[in-house]
Formats: sequence, structure tokens, C-alpha cells
Amino acid sequence: MIVRNRPTLLKLFFILRGSVIQRIFPQVLFVFALSAFVVWAHRVDPGLVPSVSSGPFALLGIALSVFLGFRNNACYDRWWEARKAWGQLIFTARDLARQTLILAGTERQRLLDITIAFGHALVCHLRPGSDVGRPLARLPTDLVAGYKASRNGPDFLLREMGGILAGLHGTGTISDFQWAQLDGTLGKMSAMLAACERIRNTPVPFGYTLLLHRTAYLFCFLLPFGFADALGWATPFVTALVAYTFFGLDALGDELEEPFGVLPNDLPIVALAETIEINLREALGETNLPPLPQPKNYILM
Amino acid sequence: MIVRNRPTLLKLFFILRGSVIQRIFPQVLFVFALSAFVVWAHRVDPGLVPSVSSGPFALLGIALSVFLGFRNNACYDRWWEARKAWGQLIFTARDLARQTLILAGTERQRLLDITIAFGHALVCHLRPGSDVGRPLARLPTDLVAGYKASRNGPDFLLREMGGILAGLHGTGTISDFQWAQLDGTLGKMSAMLAACERIRNTPVPFGYTLLLHRTAYLFCFLLPFGFADALGWATPFVTALVAYTFFGLDALGDELEEPFGVLPNDLPIVALAETIEINLREALGETNLPPLPQPKNYILM
Amino acid sequence: MIVRNRPTLLKLFFILRGSVIQRIFPQVLFVFALSAFVVWAHRVDPGLVPSVSSGPFALLGIALSVFLGFRNNACYDRWWEARKAWGQLIFTARDLARQTLILAGTERQRLLDITIAFGHALVCHLRPGSDVGRPLARLPTDLVAGYKASRNGPDFLLREMGGILAGLHGTGTISDFQWAQLDGTLGKMSAMLAACERIRNTPVPFGYTLLLHRTAYLFCFLLPFGFADALGWATPFVTALVAYTFFGLDALGDELEEPFGVLPNDLPIVALAETIEINLREALGETNLPPLPQPKNYILM
Amino acid sequence: MIVRNRPTLLKLFFILRGSVIQRIFPQVLFVFALSAFVVWAHRVDPGLVPSVSSGPFALLGIALSVFLGFRNNACYDRWWEARKAWGQLIFTARDLARQTLILAGTERQRLLDITIAFGHALVCHLRPGSDVGRPLARLPTDLVAGYKASRNGPDFLLREMGGILAGLHGTGTISDFQWAQLDGTLGKMSAMLAACERIRNTPVPFGYTLLLHRTAYLFCFLLPFGFADALGWATPFVTALVAYTFFGLDALGDELEEPFGVLPNDLPIVALAETIEINLREALGETNLPPLPQPKNYILM
Amino acid sequence: MIVRNRPTLLKLFFILRGSVIQRIFPQVLFVFALSAFVVWAHRVDPGLVPSVSSGPFALLGIALSVFLGFRNNACYDRWWEARKAWGQLIFTARDLARQTLILAGTERQRLLDITIAFGHALVCHLRPGSDVGRPLARLPTDLVAGYKASRNGPDFLLREMGGILAGLHGTGTISDFQWAQLDGTLGKMSAMLAACERIRNTPVPFGYTLLLHRTAYLFCFLLPFGFADALGWATPFVTALVAYTFFGLDALGDELEEPFGVLPNDLPIVALAETIEINLREALGETNLPPLPQPKNYILM
Repeated sequence: MIVRNRPTLLKLFFILRGSVIQRIFPQVLFVFALSAFVVWAHRVDPGLVPSVSSGPFALLGIALSVFLGFRNNACYDRWWEARKAWGQLIFTARDLARQTLILAGTERQRLLDITIAFGHALVCHLRPGSDVGRPLARLPTDLVAGYKASRNGPDFLLREMGGILAGLHGTGTISDFQWAQLDGTLGKMSAMLAACERIRNTPVPFGYTLLLHRTAYLFCFLLPFGFADALGWATPFVTALVAYTFFGLDALGDELEEPFGVLPNDLPIVALAETIEINLREALGETNLPPLPQPKNYILM
Repeated sequence: MIVRNRPTLLKLFFILRGSVIQRIFPQVLFVFALSAFVVWAHRVDPGLVPSVSSGPFALLGIALSVFLGFRNNACYDRWWEARKAWGQLIFTARDLARQTLILAGTERQRLLDITIAFGHALVCHLRPGSDVGRPLARLPTDLVAGYKASRNGPDFLLREMGGILAGLHGTGTISDFQWAQLDGTLGKMSAMLAACERIRNTPVPFGYTLLLHRTAYLFCFLLPFGFADALGWATPFVTALVAYTFFGLDALGDELEEPFGVLPNDLPIVALAETIEINLREALGETNLPPLPQPKNYILM
Repeated sequence: MIVRNRPTLLKLFFILRGSVIQRIFPQVLFVFALSAFVVWAHRVDPGLVPSVSSGPFALLGIALSVFLGFRNNACYDRWWEARKAWGQLIFTARDLARQTLILAGTERQRLLDITIAFGHALVCHLRPGSDVGRPLARLPTDLVAGYKASRNGPDFLLREMGGILAGLHGTGTISDFQWAQLDGTLGKMSAMLAACERIRNTPVPFGYTLLLHRTAYLFCFLLPFGFADALGWATPFVTALVAYTFFGLDALGDELEEPFGVLPNDLPIVALAETIEINLREALGETNLPPLPQPKNYILM
Repeated sequence: MIVRNRPTLLKLFFILRGSVIQRIFPQVLFVFALSAFVVWAHRVDPGLVPSVSSGPFALLGIALSVFLGFRNNACYDRWWEARKAWGQLIFTARDLARQTLILAGTERQRLLDITIAFGHALVCHLRPGSDVGRPLARLPTDLVAGYKASRNGPDFLLREMGGILAGLHGTGTISDFQWAQLDGTLGKMSAMLAACERIRNTPVPFGYTLLLHRTAYLFCFLLPFGFADALGWATPFVTALVAYTFFGLDALGDELEEPFGVLPNDLPIVALAETIEINLREALGETNLPPLPQPKNYILM
Repeated sequence: MIVRNRPTLLKLFFILRGSVIQRIFPQVLFVFALSAFVVWAHRVDPGLVPSVSSGPFALLGIALSVFLGFRNNACYDRWWEARKAWGQLIFTARDLARQTLILAGTERQRLLDITIAFGHALVCHLRPGSDVGRPLARLPTDLVAGYKASRNGPDFLLREMGGILAGLHGTGTISDFQWAQLDGTLGKMSAMLAACERIRNTPVPFGYTLLLHRTAYLFCFLLPFGFADALGWATPFVTALVAYTFFGLDALGDELEEPFGVLPNDLPIVALAETIEINLREALGETNLPPLPQPKNYILM
């Protein structure tokens, strides 16, 4: 996630980081060059390069805007839902810290340690290539082997927490009611895990992505032929602006579609997992808390 | 569901699988040929084929985009809601595995076996032609006859699970509270079943489908007459691009409208039911787990 | 609700049932005839009938598309919410069948009989002119008089079910907890009833309907004057296509606005109430179940 | 709320009540007159009144449609959410009537009487100028002074109901569980009250209203200059139609933005409060029920 | 939040407060001046300043409208969700006041005092620069040091409230059930806190903001060249109107994106926290209540 203040109007045009301009620069440049060539060729010999009316392009461009707007909306909703799921994990972890005040210290410590590990394990589960040592730092040592052997680390941890509760219930330490209340909190973490897996594993239907990619590219490559007559030497600038808008929105949609990735506009799930750790360690009365996660180069991971 | 990495820019134009191009190719080709004929005829004898202004087509095309966008949105929402329902089944099944830790092993085994069968039975219920033997694999043998005789297999299994809980409650094995907590989990599976049935049995109103199909086809067949003058020999290429976009979105809407079907962009419910089986068998302590479902030819069923 | 397979491309243009074409045919024909007259009059004497530029019509037509899209969206949401409410009734009825397994047979039978009657009574409540004898078929005879005298039949039945639970609770047959669990299920039926009443009694604000009707009609009646010059003898066909699209979407919005009506695209609530009856009778162990409701002439009521 | 059947096509154009035409008639007439003047002046002396191309107006008009559509959507959502909140009150009141069947008659009567008063008090709270005597009709006399002195009448009534429950719980008349179940029902009424206050007190950001008002008016006042050349004497009719559409949607948005007001398209909250009273009095066994609220002049308040 | 009545038509054009005009005036003026210069230069020497067809600008402008509409929608949804979260705090605080009627006076007083402090602490947490003394006014003195030392003030207060409940439960003052009911209410406050933090800390992806800012500005700066020919001396007025609309919506989106800020259209969270204080003090029986918060200069903070 990019964290920076709104730039001034002048700076606005020269910011690179956080912009998608770097990823789409070659294509935009190609459209610019193609436009310049078409205008030049058209001036040299009007019969050499076909130049057509811009009317039909308006129709296609507006239709494309509507459909691109639809895909961007779907991708943004996925991104925001993913953020909501993590927000739910944050307050569920805090709820657990509050509800376990009725337990003895040892069991509470163990439950909250596993919860801290759950956050870090979820990062590893959702973002391949993450630091796999992170979840182990607070994980009770007797669970390390089972965690490593499990197909689904976070689900394993939830089951272990369920086992602790079942044990406390079996010995009569907690009543039926307390078991149900605490199990309900685990259920929220389970729902949040399934929501993240859903977003991670089910992209926007590939057919949409393909259709819109293709149409956007074909449209921008045809555009110079339609604008050359109407705009003359202004054509390269206008077509490059159109290409920047269309390719840019398409690329942003790609970033948001997989909100757990490592592109600049993706969600800072490492920082969120650290926030959970800090919250729970404060709740456990620890005072040597790590600093809050800070963005590097305006980017929070 | 199509599972593949984002292709490079060049490959983008030559991917067939996952594209709807195969299903709409005849129509697009027809529009291309019709356009070529109109342009040729118009050049041979302008009076032979009427050629009209492109202005009115822009109006109709943009209106069509708005309405097509509306239908695509509705179909995508159905598809995503269906995926959410299955995500809910995944975490509900895991919740059941965690909550039943307070029960004895035999009853837990029986409840989770029926839950595994429920996932596979739901596939058969939603996708006619599925392997009907799959739900029977883990189903307790005393339930097979009843399951086969039932009008609604998944609903039968839920009622059987309710019967187990009522029995445990009647003998005092579980308290009122535990009965209510476990019954609440069954209630979530029941809600999820009804949501899938709703999406399966209630398509987008047929009137919309018909109206948009007809308008899109008529529009694309009229288009060559409106563009021939303005675009000349570029007409076939531009009209084919327009037809590809409109027919393509229309066809994608059809695929998503019935998310439990077997078209490439439909949901991989077989794989999801297998995921539930693997999760629950791991929770039961089994170690000879089958591998995670893998896509074949980029497609996960 | 119209139930039929996707027609082939050719059949697509000749389907009448399920299409709104029958209801808007006179208006579309009028626009066609008016266009033909305008073109003819304009050719005979250009000064006789004013013919103007098509530019302003594009502006108005696109604005109209956006607003018509808004109303269609609102109407579709109502229709889908109504279907969701009925889906909720289906799984709530099944939940009740499962939860009442802890009761004695007589009380369970009575509760489920009233639930079956509730479904049919709701049809009568929402769709005037329905078969009022249907709810009485399974209703315990001692409730018939009260049901007939009540202002709100379904609400009366829910109160009676609440009375049964209060009685069971008063005699200590069910515990506090069971009472609360079963009452919660009745609460879901009560919420579903209120949702249906809301959709039934609160249409989309009449001002929208009126404004969009008027604008759509005036627009289509003015259109021939704007297109006559640009399209010549193609005008009647294009304006009729525009009129078909706009009037058709307007008419479809009307159908979906009142989803409990008897128009072809409305919800099949009679069939849904029968589904509930079949589900509950199967749960009660009956075997002489009626067949599942089938569409007649592709229409399920 | 306007309650009337769909008018026939001809009547459609002559309905005044329920239309916003009365509120925007002066502005539409002004645009009509201005257009007529511009066309006349332009014919008399083309240099006197500037007349420009209509192209730029199309751009502005379509942008305005998109933004106006956004605001209308937001206002409609508020209106519909307000209706949902009242629907929630209706079923919550019925739930309370059902749940209190386990109490003695006196306490049940008192709780339901306060609930009836709550509905009427909410009308006074949301719609200044309502009949303040209405809530007092069923309010127990010992609460009248407190109700009148309270800053927030409905909140006071909910607290009093909470006090009754706390009293019953303190004397052991109701168990922990019943207290929690009944308090949950009060919680739903509390949530519904806060939702109504939110919609009542937090309008759509004033900046949007201002920006869209200004742009819509400036646009319609500039329109005649852009259309005069293209449309000639048809200009006044077309610009008046555009103005009717834009001003009309703007005015409808204003009506829906404050759904508790007394404009024709606002919600009939007086009638809804009366429905609650009738439902609860029927539940209390009263038979001298008032008639259901009827619309006057097609308008239900 | 701006609180004022709908102005009359004439006043509408001269309101400054609440309008975004002040923040975007320089840019709009610049576009006006640039347009005037382009038209003048074009008249002096057509070859000096390029003037091109307006067609391509329509395409770009409409695409921009769709994308700007998407961002405004997302920002408005954030703003409204933030308001809903505060509405939830209001009714949760009232629920707590009602539920704690079953407790002794001292504990109730302490819990509600912390709840009052929670509202004010949340304002400080979300809006840097707020009066940090405000939460301390009602905070029990033994909590002041801990509150000041905490990383997350509101979370600290919730944990303290959880500690009070755990204490009451440990001594048997409240039953399991009452503990769960009250803890559920704290859970709602915890969820609301996490929702506010999410909206506060996760802006709309910076890539969108940057792309739309840049495109909107470049578009408006290019517009004069495209309109000069078509509009002549009307160009400055029309381009300034377009710039006002586009820059204005962009600026409004910025205001709503961070709904807890201090710009005129942001949420009045100080007033909402005061409302909670007044509600709870009335519930505690206090009579020396402060007046309800009033807007200053039409603005409620």
C-alpha cells in the first residue's frame, strides 16, 4: 500500500512511485510512436496509410469505458473485501484478548501466542515467498512440527485453539457457555480465513480479463488511424493520453485483483499481522513492544 | 475456472482456451464477411446497398453498452455469491470439525463423514451429470438407501445430522447449549444449500436475456451499413472488433449466469468439495490424504 | 418465471413467450409507422415536416440510458431480494424440521403443518387472486376460524406457533434454551414476511416511473425527426430497434418492480410454497409426495 | 408515498400528482422561453446571439448524466434503507408480541403499549410538525412526564422497556436467558432508531448537491445556444425535454434524500406506525381495530 | 458536515461555504484564462495555436466521467460506511446503558463513564490535533495513566471494560450468560473501532487517485484547443464549466476519502461523541446536560 500525502499540483505530474506508469510505459510509448508515424505517413502520402472517421471509435471507446469500469469495480470490491477481512481479524484478535481475561494466565498466554502466529501464518499462506520463520517466533514449540506438516497452516492453528478450548471444557474449567462464546470467536477467524482463501484462489473470470485486455489494446492501436485526420500533429499526445488512461486502469485492475500480492497498490498484510502482534502483546502486559510498521519509500508491505 | 498466469502482451492475442472466442467465432466471422460485402457493394454501386450516417449507431451502441453492463454485473454478482456460498461451506465444515472435538470419536467421525458426503452430494445436486458415486464413498452405509431415495440429497444428509444431534441431546450426551451451537452450524450449511439452489434454479429474468441478445445481434448486423462510408475498407476490422466485444460480453454473461455449469469460466465445485474432504480428513487425523485438486489444461472443474 | 433453455441463434428472433414484445408491440409499431411517414413526407416536401440534426438526440438518448439503467438496477435488486427472502423461508422451514426433532411427534407435526400453511398463506397475502383454499389444506382445523378472521394471515400463523412454543415452555417440556432457539427460527420467518410486505407495498418512487416513462416515450416519438435526414429509408428500422430497446427495458422494469405478480418474468412463489410443502412432508416421513412443480408453457408460477 | 396503478399510455402525459413537474415547472418554462428567444434572435440577426456547435454540450451532458445518476443512486439507497429500517421495526414489534407470550398479561400489555408509543414517537422524532399527541394515546400515564422531558423520546421509551425487563429479571420472574432474548429484541429497535437518526441527520454531502445543482442549471441555460443552429424551431421543445429530465431527476433526488419528509415521494411513516399499532393490538386480542391506513389523493403519509 | 437548508435558485450560485469552489478556484481560473488566450491567438493567427476537432475529446471526456464516477462512488461508500460505524457506536452505547440496568449503580457508572471517554478517545485516535483533554474529563482517574501510556487509547479502554466484566464474573456478581451478553456489546464497539481504523488507514489505492488526477488535469488543459473552433468566444465559459465539474468532483472525492478529517464535508465526529455523552448522562439520570452540538457557520465538526 502506498502511503503519502496528496502531492501539490505540480509534483503530481512527476511522481513515479505508486503510479502504474512504469509498468505501462512501453505500450504508451508504442502508441505515441505509432501515432506520430501515421500522421507523418498520412502527410507524406494520404493514400499510403488509411485514415478514417473518428465517429466509430467514439462508440467503441465509450463501450470499452463502461466494461473497463465494470472490471475495475469488481477488482476494487475484492481488494476492499480483503481489507475488511483483515480488519475483522484485528478486532477478533482483540476480542479474544478481552474474552480470555476470564481464563488463567497460562492458557490465555498460549491462546494469544497462537493467535499472533495465526496472523503471520496467514501472510505466508496468502503471499508465497513470505518469511516462513515469522509465524514460528511466538508459536509454542510443541506445535511447530504439526504446523510445518499441515497442508493448511492457519487452519491447523485454529484447530489447535479449538483443542485447547475442548480440553478446558472437558475438565470443567470453562462452562458450556464460555466454550460457545470463545468458539464463536474462533469461528470468526475461520470465516475470515476462508474469505482470504476465496479471494486468493478465485480470480475475476479469466474470460473478462482476456476480452478487456485484447479490446483495449486493439482499440488503442487502431486509434491513431481514426484521429490522424481530426487532430493532425496533436494526435500522438491525445492518443498517448487515451492509452495511458485505458492501459493504466487495466493495470490497476490487475494489481487490485490479487490484493495479497507484492505490487505497490496491494494490501500491507505484513504490517497488519504486526499490528495484531503489537495489540496482543500489549494486552498480555508486555512493554518491550516493537515499533509500529513504517512505510519504506512510501510503500507499506 | 481457468487458472493461468497473466500472459505476455504478445501471447495475449493468441490464447484460445479460456477465451470465449471459440463460441462466438461464427457470428464474428459473419459480421466481418457482411461488412466486407457491404463495402464492396457500396463501391461497385452506391445505390445498391444503403449506407447511412454513423451517428444514430453511436446512440444505440452506447445505450446497449449500459444495458449489457447491467446484465454482466448481475451475472458476475451471481457467480461471486455462489463462490461465497461455497466458501461458507468450507469454513462451516472446518467449524464443525473444531466444535465436534468435544464429542466422542465415533460420533465425530460419523458427523464429519456425512459432511464430506454433503459436499460431494451438493455437486451432484447442482451439476447434473456429475459422478453420483462420489458422495457414497464416505457415506455411512446405513444412510445410502435413504440418500438415494430422497428428493433432495443434501437436505436429507442435513436432516440425518440433525437426527444425530437430537439423539445425543436426548441421551444427555450433549447439553442444551452444545446442541444449539452445533445446530447453528448445521443451519449455516442449510442456508448455504438454499443459496446454491436459488442461484441454480432462478436465472436472470429471461426477458433481459432475450432483449439484450436480440438487440446486440441486430445492432451488429446493422453496423456495417452505418460504418461503410466512414471507414471504407477498415469497416470489416472495426465491426468485427465491436462484434467481438459485444458478443463476447454477452457470452461471458451466459457462462457466469449459471456458475455451477461446466463451461470454462464456471466455478470449480468438484475441486472445492475435494478441498473440504481433505480439510476434514486432516482434522480426523488421517495422513493418506489425496493430493490437492490440480487444473487440467488450465481448467479446474 | 420463464424456464427454458437458451435458444439457438435463429430461434432467438422468433420467440414470443417470455419476451416483452407482446406488451410493447403497439408502441413500437407506432414509432415505425411515424418514422415511415416522416421520411416519406420529408421526401415529398422537405419543408412540410421538420427534420433536424441527430446530435442533440444522442445526448438525450445516452442520458436516458443512464437513468433507465438506474431504474432497471433498482427493480432487479427488488426482484432478487424477494427471491432471497423466499430462499430464506425455504431453509428456515427446513431448519425448523430439523430442530423440532427434539420434540414429541404431535407437536412437531402441528408446528410443521402450520409452517406448510404459512408458505401458502404468504402466497395469498402477496398475490391477490390466489387460491385461498390452499393454506387451509394442512392447517389444523382449530386455527381455521382465527386465520380467516385475521387481518394478516401469515402473521397470525406465526403468533400461533409462538403460542405453541410458549405453551411447551410453560409446561417445562422445552428448556429456556430450546425455546430461544426455536423462537429465533420463528423470528427469521417473521423477518422474511416483513421483507416481502415491504417489497409488495413500497414500489419504486412513482416520480421515477413517471419521469422515465414520459421521457422515454417523448424521446422515441421525436426520434424520427432527428434521424430522417441521416438514415433515409433505414429510419423506421433503426427507430423501431431503439424503441424496442427502450420500451422493452421500461416494461421489464415494471415486471420486476412487483416480483410477486403474475407476469411471465415474476417469481414462481406458488412453486416455491409447494417446494416447502414437499420438503416438510418428506421430513415428516410421508411418502405420498406430490410431484415437483413443473412449468407450463415454459412458465412457472 | 404515492399509491396508484400504472396509468394508461395516454393518461401518462397528463398526471400531475406524484410528478415533480409542479416543482420544476418555472425552470422548465424559463428554459423553453429562453430557447425560443435565442432561436428568434438568431434568425433576426445571427450576429446578435452567439450560436455554437452542439458537440461540446454532448460531452458535458453525458458527464452530467453519469454524476446525476450517482447522486440519484445514493439518494435512492438512503430512501430504501430507511424503508428497510421501518420494516425491521415492524417485524421486531411482532417478535416482541410473540416472545412476550411467556410473560404475565399485565407486563406484556405494558411492554406492547410502550412499543406502540415507540412507533408514533419515532414519527414525531423524525418528522417535525407531526401530531405529538399520538404517542401519548397508548403510553402508560406514569411515563408521560418522563417522555415529555426527555431529549430523545424513543430512546427514553426503550430505556423504560429495558427497566421493565431488568425489574422482571431482578425478581426472578424471567431467567437470564429470557432476559437476554428480550433484550436482544430491544437492541434491534435501538439499532433501527440509530439508523433512522443517521439518515435523518446526515444528508448527502452538501458539496455534491451544490455542484450538481449548479452544473445542471448552467448546462440547461447554455443549451439553447448550442442547439439553436442544429434544431431550429424544434429547439424549445428539445431543450425543455432535456431540462425536464435533468431538473426532474435532481428534484426527485432531493425528495428521496430526506425520506422522512412530507413530500409526495417520501415514506409513509405515519401509516407504518399505525400498521404496527394494529398488529400489536390484534396480538393483544383487541377486536375494535382501526381501519388500515388509506391513501388520500393517491398519497399515503 | 455542512448543515443548511436547500438554498433558493438564485442564492444557489453565490454560496461559497460548503462549495469546493474555493479549493479549485485557481485551476478553474487558469483553464478560463488559457481558453481565452487560445481563442484570441487562434483569431489573430490560426497557424500560431493548433486547434483541432472536438470529437476525440468527447471520447476522452466520457471515459473520464465513467472512471471519475467510479472513484466518487468508492469515496462516498467509505464516507457513508464511516457514518454507519459511528451510528453503530451510538446504539451500542445506548444498549450498554440499558443492559447495565441489571448491575449495581457503581459498576454501571464506571462502565458508562468509560464508554463516554471511548467516544472522545476515538475522535482523538482518528483525527490528529483533536482536544486530547476531552476523553480525560469522564475517565476514572485510576485509568488516566494507563490510557496515556497505551499505543491505542480506545482499545485500552475496551480492554479495561472487559476487565471489569471479568471481575464481576469472577466474583459471581454476573452469570455466564450476562457476561456473554455484555461482552457481545463490547465486541460491537471493538468491531466499530476496527472499521474506523480501516477507513482511516487504508485510502483508495493511490494509483487510482494519481491516474485520475493526472488525466483530469491534462484533459482540461487540452480542452481549449479542441473547443476553440467549435465554440469561439464561448469557449472560456464552457471549458471553465467543464473544469469546475471535473475538478470539483475530484476534490469532493478527496474530502470524502478521509471522512474523519476537518474539511467542510467530513463527518462531525466531535458532535457525535458529544451526542453519545448526552445520551449516556441522561441514562445515568443526570439533569445538567450540555446543549446539543450546534453547527457554526453552517458547519458541524
